[in-house]
Amino acid sequence: MAEWAARLAGARAVVLDISGVLYDSGGEAGGVPIPGSREAVRKLKASGLKLRFCTNETQATREKFVEKLQRLGFDILVSEVTAPAPAACRILKERNLRPHLLVHDDLVPEFDQLDKGNPNCVVLGDAADNFSYKNLNEAFRVLIGLENPILISLGRGRYYKETDGLKLDVGAYMKALEYACDIQAEVVGKPSKMFFQSALAEMGVEPQQAIMIGDDIVNDVGGAQQCGMRALQVRTGKYRPCDEQHPEVTPDGYVNNLAEAVDIILKQLDK
Amino acid sequence: MAEWAARLAGARAVVLDISGVLYDSGGEAGGVPIPGSREAVRKLKASGLKLRFCTNETQATREKFVEKLQRLGFDILVSEVTAPAPAACRILKERNLRPHLLVHDDLVPEFDQLDKGNPNCVVLGDAADNFSYKNLNEAFRVLIGLENPILISLGRGRYYKETDGLKLDVGAYMKALEYACDIQAEVVGKPSKMFFQSALAEMGVEPQQAIMIGDDIVNDVGGAQQCGMRALQVRTGKYRPCDEQHPEVTPDGYVNNLAEAVDIILKQLDK
Repeated sequence: MAEWAARLAGARAVVLDISGVLYDSGGEAGGVPIPGSREAVRKLKASGLKLRFCTNETQATREKFVEKLQRLGFDILVSEVTAPAPAACRILKERNLRPHLLVHDDLVPEFDQLDKGNPNCVVLGDAADNFSYKNLNEAFRVLIGLENPILISLGRGRYYKETDGLKLDVGAYMKALEYACDIQAEVVGKPSKMFFQSALAEMGVEPQQAIMIGDDIVNDVGGAQQCGMRALQVRTGKYRPCDEQHPEVTPDGYVNNLAEAVDIILKQLDK
Repeated sequence: MAEWAARLAGARAVVLDISGVLYDSGGEAGGVPIPGSREAVRKLKASGLKLRFCTNETQATREKFVEKLQRLGFDILVSEVTAPAPAACRILKERNLRPHLLVHDDLVPEFDQLDKGNPNCVVLGDAADNFSYKNLNEAFRVLIGLENPILISLGRGRYYKETDGLKLDVGAYMKALEYACDIQAEVVGKPSKMFFQSALAEMGVEPQQAIMIGDDIVNDVGGAQQCGMRALQVRTGKYRPCDEQHPEVTPDGYVNNLAEAVDIILKQLDK
């Protein structure tokens, strides 16, 4: 048992990142489960701990994304997932914003209810192949033409891992537009504090009662800790050995994968 | 005569930006001359002032670029042009760097002499439609796989104006890769001091003897002033009225276009 395991005492809830923790995305089936992760989710659900999935995934609607995970064998429901697009929709409605979307085709239905004529902001998601020069220029021209350019970015990740290699994430393109327009994006998704807080509120727990498990040292681990949660980094997904020397973020513990994390957490419960 | 014109006294050389000063790029002919600019170049050449063209253009080899300008009616020679790609080639050779290129197809011949196998750096130019998600990912993977990632960016412009509208420039994509890899690019081109200095060295003049004329408040005007030159901003090309309230850069003077700038400079010579 790792020495740091005692730090996990008193947990009432677990928040799980999805990509790189439950599965690696990509390929024909849309992804491959990380060994032991399906069983780990089942164990968590049987343990009595509250559980929520907190993802920055924006390549599909929450419904389609959860369907894929179910097909891959995960015990997961739409109502258990906190995702950026539904959160962004609420914000857009509250502020009467009409978005120009630069997102993945499969995410577009999340914004069906919104007026998108004569846009007064840009919403940027992980658009993947939609990140063409043409599409970036269109989003840029909307922003540069606004008196107060508003850029809402669904996450600020640098890159993620698919089965065929590392890929640039939305954060890189956010930086491109921020620089071109000399503005700062508003981030909806991890590591935004408000985003973690909404996941905690869904479970009715305080930050110090919850443990985040993720593969992203900055957006999962750093973001959760900033919010008052404890956080473990898994050595799967986009994890790289140099993360363990990160200048700003130190996880409460490292685990080889989700299965190991869950075993350690559940052992602490038994004490 | 503008009040600031007296500041131009003692000039021995003029450095001209090309795109947005001589012509607006884009369209079938590759661009449209800005009215009066062809005659202004001729007047400068007849005046006895030294003249150099200093561009961040990287959508074509210097040879092809100059051919286009000649077709558009400009009196300009390859030997009169300072451009980023030839400068980058010299640096790559000196440092034994083997580049992975993310540049416009028409720029590739500039790098013909270099070994590009097993790349140990990335060279980023204004790749335009080559800025696809696929190509950005390839460049990203080269960088993230290097122990010491070296990114050489041919300029750091935010955007430029073509006949069909504003377009993102290489600087936006430089920022995307800088962020994704957590590195700082080395910029070859304006506003790099070394780049202006090489243009001055070609003419054999000191910075305080030279006047820069450009449409880019930061890269032309700010860069030249940092180097000790005087600089005028033209109200053509990518100029926007809000440039006149720029928080960091104030040109030595504003002119409506190159023709007006040259008339004012030549009048100061007559005194």
